[in-house]
Amino acid sequence: MIVIMKAQAQMRDISAVISRIEDAGYKVHLSEGDERTIVGVIGDGRPLDRDQLERMPGVERCVPVLKPFKLASRDFKPNDTTFPIGNHMVGNKEIVLMAGPCSVESRSQILETAHAVKEAGAHILRGGAFKPRSSPYAFQGLGEEGLKYLAEAREQTGLPIVTEVMEPAMVPLVCEYADILQIGARNIQNYALLHAVGESQHPVLLKRGMSSLMEEWLMSAEYILSHGNTRIMLCERGIRTFEKYTRNTFDINAIPVIKQLSHLPIIADPSHATGKWEYVAAAAKASVAAGADGLIIEVHPRPEEALSDGVQSLKPKRFAQLVVEMKAIAEAVNRKIS
Amino acid sequence: MIVIMKAQAQMRDISAVISRIEDAGYKVHLSEGDERTIVGVIGDGRPLDRDQLERMPGVERCVPVLKPFKLASRDFKPNDTTFPIGNHMVGNKEIVLMAGPCSVESRSQILETAHAVKEAGAHILRGGAFKPRSSPYAFQGLGEEGLKYLAEAREQTGLPIVTEVMEPAMVPLVCEYADILQIGARNIQNYALLHAVGESQHPVLLKRGMSSLMEEWLMSAEYILSHGNTRIMLCERGIRTFEKYTRNTFDINAIPVIKQLSHLPIIADPSHATGKWEYVAAAAKASVAAGADGLIIEVHPRPEEALSDGVQSLKPKRFAQLVVEMKAIAEAVNRKIS
Amino acid sequence: MIVIMKAQAQMRDISAVISRIEDAGYKVHLSEGDERTIVGVIGDGRPLDRDQLERMPGVERCVPVLKPFKLASRDFKPNDTTFPIGNHMVGNKEIVLMAGPCSVESRSQILETAHAVKEAGAHILRGGAFKPRSSPYAFQGLGEEGLKYLAEAREQTGLPIVTEVMEPAMVPLVCEYADILQIGARNIQNYALLHAVGESQHPVLLKRGMSSLMEEWLMSAEYILSHGNTRIMLCERGIRTFEKYTRNTFDINAIPVIKQLSHLPIIADPSHATGKWEYVAAAAKASVAAGADGLIIEVHPRPEEALSDGVQSLKPKRFAQLVVEMKAIAEAVNRKIS
Amino acid sequence: MIVIMKAQAQMRDISAVISRIEDAGYKVHLSEGDERTIVGVIGDGRPLDRDQLERMPGVERCVPVLKPFKLASRDFKPNDTTFPIGNHMVGNKEIVLMAGPCSVESRSQILETAHAVKEAGAHILRGGAFKPRSSPYAFQGLGEEGLKYLAEAREQTGLPIVTEVMEPAMVPLVCEYADILQIGARNIQNYALLHAVGESQHPVLLKRGMSSLMEEWLMSAEYILSHGNTRIMLCERGIRTFEKYTRNTFDINAIPVIKQLSHLPIIADPSHATGKWEYVAAAAKASVAAGADGLIIEVHPRPEEALSDGVQSLKPKRFAQLVVEMKAIAEAVNRKIS
Repeated sequence: MIVIMKAQAQMRDISAVISRIEDAGYKVHLSEGDERTIVGVIGDGRPLDRDQLERMPGVERCVPVLKPFKLASRDFKPNDTTFPIGNHMVGNKEIVLMAGPCSVESRSQILETAHAVKEAGAHILRGGAFKPRSSPYAFQGLGEEGLKYLAEAREQTGLPIVTEVMEPAMVPLVCEYADILQIGARNIQNYALLHAVGESQHPVLLKRGMSSLMEEWLMSAEYILSHGNTRIMLCERGIRTFEKYTRNTFDINAIPVIKQLSHLPIIADPSHATGKWEYVAAAAKASVAAGADGLIIEVHPRPEEALSDGVQSLKPKRFAQLVVEMKAIAEAVNRKIS
Repeated sequence: MIVIMKAQAQMRDISAVISRIEDAGYKVHLSEGDERTIVGVIGDGRPLDRDQLERMPGVERCVPVLKPFKLASRDFKPNDTTFPIGNHMVGNKEIVLMAGPCSVESRSQILETAHAVKEAGAHILRGGAFKPRSSPYAFQGLGEEGLKYLAEAREQTGLPIVTEVMEPAMVPLVCEYADILQIGARNIQNYALLHAVGESQHPVLLKRGMSSLMEEWLMSAEYILSHGNTRIMLCERGIRTFEKYTRNTFDINAIPVIKQLSHLPIIADPSHATGKWEYVAAAAKASVAAGADGLIIEVHPRPEEALSDGVQSLKPKRFAQLVVEMKAIAEAVNRKIS
Repeated sequence: MIVIMKAQAQMRDISAVISRIEDAGYKVHLSEGDERTIVGVIGDGRPLDRDQLERMPGVERCVPVLKPFKLASRDFKPNDTTFPIGNHMVGNKEIVLMAGPCSVESRSQILETAHAVKEAGAHILRGGAFKPRSSPYAFQGLGEEGLKYLAEAREQTGLPIVTEVMEPAMVPLVCEYADILQIGARNIQNYALLHAVGESQHPVLLKRGMSSLMEEWLMSAEYILSHGNTRIMLCERGIRTFEKYTRNTFDINAIPVIKQLSHLPIIADPSHATGKWEYVAAAAKASVAAGADGLIIEVHPRPEEALSDGVQSLKPKRFAQLVVEMKAIAEAVNRKIS
Repeated sequence: MIVIMKAQAQMRDISAVISRIEDAGYKVHLSEGDERTIVGVIGDGRPLDRDQLERMPGVERCVPVLKPFKLASRDFKPNDTTFPIGNHMVGNKEIVLMAGPCSVESRSQILETAHAVKEAGAHILRGGAFKPRSSPYAFQGLGEEGLKYLAEAREQTGLPIVTEVMEPAMVPLVCEYADILQIGARNIQNYALLHAVGESQHPVLLKRGMSSLMEEWLMSAEYILSHGNTRIMLCERGIRTFEKYTRNTFDINAIPVIKQLSHLPIIADPSHATGKWEYVAAAAKASVAAGADGLIIEVHPRPEEALSDGVQSLKPKRFAQLVVEMKAIAEAVNRKIS
């Protein structure tokens, strides 16, 4: 931490800041410029609260030197995190493809889709049984019934299942059925939920919140990591901006930034990141080229009948064609879609 | 709902849209322009999914005519919602003042602050016992111990208590101690939590999410209302923008907009909306002038020692002065701070 | 400037940074922490480019200590800037009211409006003769003819005129007719235009760009100041966010922030900041309470016939009522609307 | 246009709206629902002002059916616009590469860079002679001297030149030297400048403004098109969001969206879109995969000495490697970098 004093700071203000820092067990490094004094904090001590320091008389602002996340940081763990899901390793040279409908709507719908996406080349089946919807009057998912259909789809196709869990009390139930726990964008700072999945041993797909800073997103991963679960995939799904032609703005920069800051695998969700099926293929191909470790794509056999997100879902045939196109790009960037 | 067809839409596309709408029990009103056809949906029927319609061939986009919230809407309930908290009516001519520290840090801190804010003119005591923090390593609140200190502060001062509840399982515990349940900005779309407070009979202070559209915020209120709890205060606490000199951008427009769209009372939180104590007074006074039904302001006896949000907390003396200033403005706009 | 080195920075990286800084004429202050080295820049020298330093090997990032604006800063000039416009002083205890139509549409329209706003209490007449419109097919203003009508309105009412100038070549013409040159939000970084108005001696109303950081806005003021014109009013007119119920988000925080950072007067534009006439009064009253030095409000005798911005224009009668309401608030905050 | 009336609209309100529309020469199509009346506007007539209609009593809001841009729209011109620059066709199967420094800093710097980027595979040389800088104290470019050096670089390498023009009065001068006129992000709504380049016959590179809606960006293209210049390249260079780890958020969605809405070629600027050289390669490769018609990339032989944008500039060697990588992706998406 560096404390920048105001131009008008008094000697006693500076002394008070120094005492505060030293009392917390740190050493102080003073730099007196012509216009203002800067106080550097060195060594180890009790956590220093930035807010407290900024509230002291004469302090203009504090500049943190270290990043606030530790376990999630590449400084802490320089090598890429990899772990197996089904027969695939996530975080490796291979790019993993997750596909399926937004919601599980019926037994036949999820079984039909599961077979279709498997045939098209997907490695993991997605499908929501518990659906966070902005309206209390909208379809909220089939609940446990949906989980059972997902399990049956896995049995028939061999595809592992990723599905959302929305509240701490549901974590044990969802763990019974799912291979990967999805934390949705709306729950990125639902700390009780992060705590609960952190204590499970299931891999987690952690979606970025719709207006999360990348730093906050990594802090949410830090919550999970600090409770003992290290198998996290970060999922970029677009952020909220002023633009109106798309549902979200796909922050593709997040792929190289997260790769640099963290060892965790990064997954792209081009369906939510665009919100319109016509743009999904371009965004998906861009994700592969930018270095994503996987993709999660909404596929529905009859999008015009989908109970949610039909407008951004691909039909199986279009998805199959996209897989072919992504394979070509994967090779061009020295990755592989098997 | 209005369905706008593409310029290139075929006759069979239009027919399919008409069938879909009629199958759901509505009447159709067709408007054939020179360039495109527009299909109006009239009457009552089963809910029509906008996404599904937009995914049909030949459809360009759908335009909802009605707002998605009902119980929260002023169309549904033209008169202002009012309800008592302690000796005050919220939503009335009187402006209610809530004040206190961000976190309950110790028995003495909350007692000292409670007496100070009461003396300064506050009507309700705020203080967090469960604290959502972006870092898992930061102070997370005193938990039930904090609730007990709050209850003791109420006993000594007579001030009702507003405090945050972060997860559904904690609602019964917090209800035992608190007079008002606060839903924090991070939990604006934590539907399990909205459901749980909707089933309680405690008044709710519902903070806007940091990037919530006002429509989404009202939809979250709708969740609570649809579970039977009608005593909701909406709290504008600033939104996330690109601006860096302030922690958030105070969306003061929300005050007249919410007043027009909804019958629910609107509370302003100038502390979070600015993030810096120097700007709190200006934002607070603006809120009164704009028509807020109440304010919630962070006050701490020694902000430079606060375990959270010290940088945006007022000292009791400054708060007392602000109350005087707000009273003058309240009178000028024909409201009252008692 | 403070240079934060990467954890992995080599000795030779640090040396290179030190040489670069010393070569520019500064002294270096080195702070070696356990995890990383921090290099402070002290004293006077040739301008140091932050980008260049950040591009040097081993550098993580640079933190500027001083603000980039000088002439616009309150550190440079602690006292409020005040200057006369007509019979009023701007930047003083008095709050100045500018009102009138978005565009000058005809001789009779501007004369009628001028008399109406004068009678209601306005001090300055606004009206656009050159209109920046996002569509090339929309009404672009009456040009010099409009300026002549404005001049006639001034003659009849005594109200000084504020009107927009859109390109450097037009500055001399607009100066012939106008009392205040308005720089619109779209031209906030039109440096040739800022240069040109900087060389005129007319007061300038500098609107914030729709996504300007306050720092950038002050830098645009710095352009004008550095060319010799010190009579600048900064005008907050709302910023672009994700919210859809209003045209812009009124950043009312800007009022106290600008007051703290700069000596220049700050004017609020509640018409653009809300975009809907129903919300203008609340935003206007909030501006007075927050400490604005003036307001600029769109008024049109028949808004439903206005050639631009009708939806956010007040009728004269409503404006007159608003002036009365604002006067009461002005008194409550110890200001005055004469 | 569709006019949605309020639930409480009176008969006379509806009649007034109908008269207004019919007076402008349109036919009206009335749709009376149970809750509200909707008025459709059909046929041809004088332009109808949305603002005016929205300001009429009883009107809730208007929904435009047609897009506001015409000449820029794919409906108007279904086939891709292509035009030659030097030996390359823009908008064709071939992807065009523009590269060079942010600013022309000296004769030797631009000549050295020109040769390096040509050797690496660039087709067009970029370099700024007039530089829009947020600080009046920063390097503003070499002006005409810089243009002369660019011309010399073209003579030596055969590479056409793209360079920025900042004000209408400078268009003739820049046209003397440049092959392509760049309109910078800050000037996206500098209509006098758009007018001036619209009357030139030089190809234009039109950068998106930092908070432009895609619709506004296309409206700015419409300005140029409506003045007779059809050779426009749209350039996505990132938009301003709340994210702090990158200078801008690269809106890669813009590539497929613009391709769908317009016939104009779309160019990506991964240097500004990320703001940090480490992320440029990922963003550049993503752009190729997403379907960009070209890229513009900042390259500097010694970025740590660059007078602007050093932090986002690639060294020639890294750029050469990136060209190889982009070629592989171009082939994978059936495009070509020659």
